[in-house]
Amino acid sequence: MTGKTNTGNFFEDFRLGQVLGHATPRTVSEGDITLYGALYGGRFAATSSVEFARGIGYRALPVDDFLAFHIVFGKTVPDISLNAVANLGYASGIFGVPVFAGDTLSAMSEVIGLKENSNGKTGVVYVRTTGVNQRRETVLDYVRWVMVRKRDESVPAPDARLPDLPNAVDAAALKVPDGLDLGAYDAGLAGSQYLWDDYAIGEKIDHVDGSTVEEAEHMLATRLYQNTAKVHFNQFEQKAGRFGRRLVYGGHVISTARALSFNGLANAFKVVAINAGQHANPIFAGDTIHAWSEVLAMAEIDGRRDLGALRLRTVATKDRACADFPLKDQAGKYLPDVVLDFDYWALMPRRH
Amino acid sequence: MTGKTNTGNFFEDFRLGQVLGHATPRTVSEGDITLYGALYGGRFAATSSVEFARGIGYRALPVDDFLAFHIVFGKTVPDISLNAVANLGYASGIFGVPVFAGDTLSAMSEVIGLKENSNGKTGVVYVRTTGVNQRRETVLDYVRWVMVRKRDESVPAPDARLPDLPNAVDAAALKVPDGLDLGAYDAGLAGSQYLWDDYAIGEKIDHVDGSTVEEAEHMLATRLYQNTAKVHFNQFEQKAGRFGRRLVYGGHVISTARALSFNGLANAFKVVAINAGQHANPIFAGDTIHAWSEVLAMAEIDGRRDLGALRLRTVATKDRACADFPLKDQAGKYLPDVVLDFDYWALMPRRH
Amino acid sequence: MTGKTNTGNFFEDFRLGQVLGHATPRTVSEGDITLYGALYGGRFAATSSVEFARGIGYRALPVDDFLAFHIVFGKTVPDISLNAVANLGYASGIFGVPVFAGDTLSAMSEVIGLKENSNGKTGVVYVRTTGVNQRRETVLDYVRWVMVRKRDESVPAPDARLPDLPNAVDAAALKVPDGLDLGAYDAGLAGSQYLWDDYAIGEKIDHVDGSTVEEAEHMLATRLYQNTAKVHFNQFEQKAGRFGRRLVYGGHVISTARALSFNGLANAFKVVAINAGQHANPIFAGDTIHAWSEVLAMAEIDGRRDLGALRLRTVATKDRACADFPLKDQAGKYLPDVVLDFDYWALMPRRH
Repeated sequence: MTGKTNTGNFFEDFRLGQVLGHATPRTVSEGDITLYGALYGGRFAATSSVEFARGIGYRALPVDDFLAFHIVFGKTVPDISLNAVANLGYASGIFGVPVFAGDTLSAMSEVIGLKENSNGKTGVVYVRTTGVNQRRETVLDYVRWVMVRKRDESVPAPDARLPDLPNAVDAAALKVPDGLDLGAYDAGLAGSQYLWDDYAIGEKIDHVDGSTVEEAEHMLATRLYQNTAKVHFNQFEQKAGRFGRRLVYGGHVISTARALSFNGLANAFKVVAINAGQHANPIFAGDTIHAWSEVLAMAEIDGRRDLGALRLRTVATKDRACADFPLKDQAGKYLPDVVLDFDYWALMPRRH
Repeated sequence: MTGKTNTGNFFEDFRLGQVLGHATPRTVSEGDITLYGALYGGRFAATSSVEFARGIGYRALPVDDFLAFHIVFGKTVPDISLNAVANLGYASGIFGVPVFAGDTLSAMSEVIGLKENSNGKTGVVYVRTTGVNQRRETVLDYVRWVMVRKRDESVPAPDARLPDLPNAVDAAALKVPDGLDLGAYDAGLAGSQYLWDDYAIGEKIDHVDGSTVEEAEHMLATRLYQNTAKVHFNQFEQKAGRFGRRLVYGGHVISTARALSFNGLANAFKVVAINAGQHANPIFAGDTIHAWSEVLAMAEIDGRRDLGALRLRTVATKDRACADFPLKDQAGKYLPDVVLDFDYWALMPRRH
Repeated sequence: MTGKTNTGNFFEDFRLGQVLGHATPRTVSEGDITLYGALYGGRFAATSSVEFARGIGYRALPVDDFLAFHIVFGKTVPDISLNAVANLGYASGIFGVPVFAGDTLSAMSEVIGLKENSNGKTGVVYVRTTGVNQRRETVLDYVRWVMVRKRDESVPAPDARLPDLPNAVDAAALKVPDGLDLGAYDAGLAGSQYLWDDYAIGEKIDHVDGSTVEEAEHMLATRLYQNTAKVHFNQFEQKAGRFGRRLVYGGHVISTARALSFNGLANAFKVVAINAGQHANPIFAGDTIHAWSEVLAMAEIDGRRDLGALRLRTVATKDRACADFPLKDQAGKYLPDVVLDFDYWALMPRRH
């Protein structure tokens, strides 16, 4: 061992307030838009057609919000979660300026919470990660927390400090991209006549379609994001592990569910915030993902009559259709075939 | 059920003369050219090298004709064939202006024929689909017919009306892209010395090479085309179905066969028309595709000495080499290992 | 058989001094950069971020050196190795001008050595291949030798002639791209603080991570390079062959090992020469690749204080971790789980 290999940070390496500048800036290109499209099959018109995008005020074809999310997330892995046992949750995520082909993304994280587990072997690290473009404009800012192993169990626990996190991003904090104007939004081209006004709080939508995960696809996706977490790529090592298989990156499920959600939410053209998210159960190649969504809240956007925000919970399952909206058992525990519970805000055009 | 999910049109929803504007305009990019290349391995010089393409009069690297076809086809699926039992045939397809990276494709279809089947459960729908770019120039116009389920078998049958379709596109109707001039066509760079003049009607060519289909690849391809037909993606549902497996999109076979046909037809640089096409048998991941072609006709193009057209039948098989040109049995039925019988016109340079 | 199909050259078709201009010029695009990234997960900053690349003097984001290598190599397959039994080695490879999106690559080869094997059935062909861009600037020049079948064993053997090949490219012959200036190289962004000065001859680095090969991925890669060698694609034919399986293109292993080598060699941002290379054992889908490297030599570059060259041997294995640096047995034979032994020069920034 020469010591030149990155072994990642362990729980005792993190300090409250510590700022980590992540490596590997990444230029996004039209190739990324294509490959992301082929991996998930998204059909939201605003990220499929530059003509449609320009028609609602974008200067170019915007990159899918979750592609930006995954790239920013990927940068953090070598510093934050190389020794993670589990990715526990997300909160307080706000998308900033849109990302376009040609933009270069980089990321930094601040440690905002630490709590050692009572077993003395692991601890939970909370980080706020900020992804910026080449002009240092924020494209995404979010909190995630992960359970990380200790290198040396004898190191004393730090003072526990949990960040104060909101249940959801306040609608007033949502950022509508500059220049957006949905006056000319063509719902026919977008694939659905249902606009913001047509949804109701509590409404549940079964997205009907299903998509089977392949090893080649989740690995292509995860490498596209330069996410280096070992569990996704190394079958030789994984076959001796807990599951005997490569684990699929949870973000692959988020993107699959988002693409499936087109069928019922075709006009939810832009994700603007991540309120919460849990990867309820692991997913493996061969599993088929279905999804359903619930409208948790609806918000007007200050000063705008052309669009509103829907707070959505999108739930994904494995090898189970979603006509009955599966979620939790009577004890409040996620059903074993629920794999994702994701809470976010999306923009949708309003009726004139 | 909220009713916001697209359940597709059933047979009784179609009306003769009905025009359907399809959703999801799609901007084609250099990323699409790359991924399509990686999926099929095409080597036609005119779609591989911008220098070569410019040398014969294109303003940029043209997108493969079948990539354009699949994208236009994909747009029609949610409206035409979501409840299809079978994709029965193609006819009367003419490629118009070439597609370049940056172009945005959209599509509309007109119902030109309807005929309920005698079982009262399904019917055949004939549509003429037109794909256009952002300048409303036609890039492709073709007819296909599909067998579609009825939602309600008690709905009376419409008057049967079959469109009058030609056996083949007339050579006089073929469109040579504006500006094309093959005077400087470099057959050495293109990979073969055999030009239009060297082929003969009735000549058969075994394309020799074979390519095995993978689940990840046909799904990436089919999502690239935003084709949402459920049978290609959902193993959980398909395992209870007729075949127990995901069906491969027939267009994936067309593109595979076209790429294989390079070996023997290297200078057939541009497909200009689709005369007919049948997906003779289903194909699944693990099957290996081989192909052979026959020259059905040869046509001069009015006013041009630099190029001519070959009418080709390209036949693809699964798990069977094509040295003996397999096609039909003595009863005229496709052999069980024949998967595609495709009849089209392609352009090829002529000797000076 | 019409004779229009390429059956490739056999051993007796090659003549010393013969020059073969290869077909299928290929324009490289941003799509290629994306897909190559997704196939291997490379994280070298100079090929990931256009901002980083410009910061060290590139005019645009350079294409990965091995992507250029594979594309040039792919062009040679139909003429050189369609009837090859084995790809025996590489030598004397020098990378010239960098390749950028928009460049069109083409290739030619000169036969520089011939030697029939004593069995009279095969012979070894040595070629020097030159890849150029659309301005006829050399992007890569290298020697490889392959064992090729004879079509007709009765053809007498040619006079044996072996080229005089160096053990390694002389450091004085390495080409640093014009305009490169590492004064502003940001090691933090690149992911490692270890610069050229921090390495030592004889130092060995276990790259730790592993990556499992999938059929869909190696075929996508190999078609991306327009490499048409049949053994990679046709399971129907291969199942009757020696291994019963599709063989993975050796270059797929080179690129995988190079991407894995980031972990320990993050600042080896540019490969400038290929000294030698052997594909020690075949690799198949399902195998997991690990890699380790040894510093074989270190060289200053004439007139430059900002960068130096490392001569590296990168060894890849299948289904074996590399903590013990596996290579050969006591008899000097490659261990059965060693798949690649690759010797090359890479540039790395120096301390100021």
